[in-house]
Amino acid sequence: MPGYTVTVTVRLKQGVLDPEAETTQRALERLGFDLEDLRSADQFELDLTAEDAEAAQERAEEMTERLLANPTIHDYEVAVDPR
Amino acid sequence: MPGYTVTVTVRLKQGVLDPEAETTQRALERLGFDLEDLRSADQFELDLTAEDAEAAQERAEEMTERLLANPTIHDYEVAVDPR
Repeated sequence: MPGYTVTVTVRLKQGVLDPEAETTQRALERLGFDLEDLRSADQFELDLTAEDAEAAQERAEEMTERLLANPTIHDYEVAVDPR
Repeated sequence: MPGYTVTVTVRLKQGVLDPEAETTQRALERLGFDLEDLRSADQFELDLTAEDAEAAQERAEEMTERLLANPTIHDYEVAVDPR
């Protein structure tokens, strides 16, 4: 079966507080950098084999919903690349 | 000045241990998923204004080297998109 690298990006939903991102933004501002907003996200790169790209995408979505993201507070994106 | 969204992806360098990623991989395997490798990365999305895309890229690289990444253990990538 062909190998794929699936990139899953997990972001907080709009409106969910992100104190870590706020702290990082303020630290950058204290260093003299000027920025309007900073958001943070977690990214997972999964190497797996699957019948085709569609199967890889489906499997990664299942893994994300079971473990990598919390659907109450997170949105996520899945991108599949052949390896 | 035009606005840009800069995406900074910070990864551990090859060979640096990532116990959190290993734990996540093992948890997925325990749930019955089959995968060859899992790597994790931190992503920061910065909204800023700059004279042009090149200036935005340069500023983001400076912020990354000063605060967002630790060059001893991290590699990073910077991508600039107009907002």
